[in-house]
Amino acid sequence: MRKSVEAEKIVRRPSHILRGEATRARVLESAVQIATLEGLEALTIGRMAKVAKISKAGLLGHFKSKERLQLATLAAGRRRFFEAVVSPLRSDEEGILRLAGLIERALNYISNTKGGCFFVAVAAEFDGREGPVRDSVAAIIREWRSTLAKVADQAKELGHIIKGLDTRELAFALHAYELAMNLDLHLLGDTKAKINARKFVRDLLISACTPVGRRLLTRKG
Amino acid sequence: MRKSVEAEKIVRRPSHILRGEATRARVLESAVQIATLEGLEALTIGRMAKVAKISKAGLLGHFKSKERLQLATLAAGRRRFFEAVVSPLRSDEEGILRLAGLIERALNYISNTKGGCFFVAVAAEFDGREGPVRDSVAAIIREWRSTLAKVADQAKELGHIIKGLDTRELAFALHAYELAMNLDLHLLGDTKAKINARKFVRDLLISACTPVGRRLLTRKG
Repeated sequence: MRKSVEAEKIVRRPSHILRGEATRARVLESAVQIATLEGLEALTIGRMAKVAKISKAGLLGHFKSKERLQLATLAAGRRRFFEAVVSPLRSDEEGILRLAGLIERALNYISNTKGGCFFVAVAAEFDGREGPVRDSVAAIIREWRSTLAKVADQAKELGHIIKGLDTRELAFALHAYELAMNLDLHLLGDTKAKINARKFVRDLLISACTPVGRRLLTRKG
Repeated sequence: MRKSVEAEKIVRRPSHILRGEATRARVLESAVQIATLEGLEALTIGRMAKVAKISKAGLLGHFKSKERLQLATLAAGRRRFFEAVVSPLRSDEEGILRLAGLIERALNYISNTKGGCFFVAVAAEFDGREGPVRDSVAAIIREWRSTLAKVADQAKELGHIIKGLDTRELAFALHAYELAMNLDLHLLGDTKAKINARKFVRDLLISACTPVGRRLLTRKG
């Protein structure tokens, strides 16, 4: 129902606005790719205007400034990651299997992305600076961590995870293996990286589980 | 004995060469700091000449090109890390305590360095590119991993680590917590990061230990 209302809204928009949105989406798609490989500083107005085949003034009309373009690129990267990794969790069985599914999709997403994790790339670029771009990178990474912790909290409520366990610490550790896999795959070219990461993630999950949780986790192989 | 021969060599060098070495060392010290915060691409000849208070031609006399300067900066950063973290291992008791000491010094080094781990910063900057700078970053990270694995192999020979355990996988996992601590400290500003990393490192080491190794590890607190 909601989707058709959204669709109607789009249909009612004048065609020059639709064209503008398509341009904006096209610029942001390239921007996420370029920033993953070369960093957010590589997103100059001149370069992105060339990529989008529009004038610099046209590009500035869409994004106002380089910083606003960087922030929009972060938002686009976040949306893409959350759609691929977090949105499907509704079809996972609630509890420990949902947590396992979430981290498995994150490992798949990172290993299938050319240049690796967009957020790791831009985190290293901006962690020595101040400002809204750095704050936005940090907020997105915190959001991912807290998503992991919340799903782990649900698993705890369902009795799948040990009561005394700190789910924010568990999220830190799960994320650690994502970071290491990303480094090994994309810098060291180690094809064993994903196998390693999955093994240690599984060990972590099993050590966090109650007997009930462990049965669920090992049931699926 | 060997040291005094080295010292003599230095004494015999003409003074202009000694001055040259001091300038080179000074440039590289600043270069490591700048690259940690802003990346290796920030090391332009113009900027580094200004930092060193010499002419561009003078700086090029020392380093030949921006790429050679980047490579020399990586070598300087590597030397610094290995001197602080790896060299003291001779005074650690051989085996599991040496491995624990090694990783503890690495966590200390990273948490005490402004801007965090130099190699994480430049790994993210260069993992999407080709060339000698990328190859050098990868080689240094591989060397660190293999140092961890070799020390773990010694611990295995001494019966401190379980026979069937893959020490390269253990090195991957130990490194993962370094990476996560670095991110949490320097991007998220989470002061709990080091406590988290030490906890999970300890859990990993304990799960890798034989009963003998475990007694050694827990003896020290």
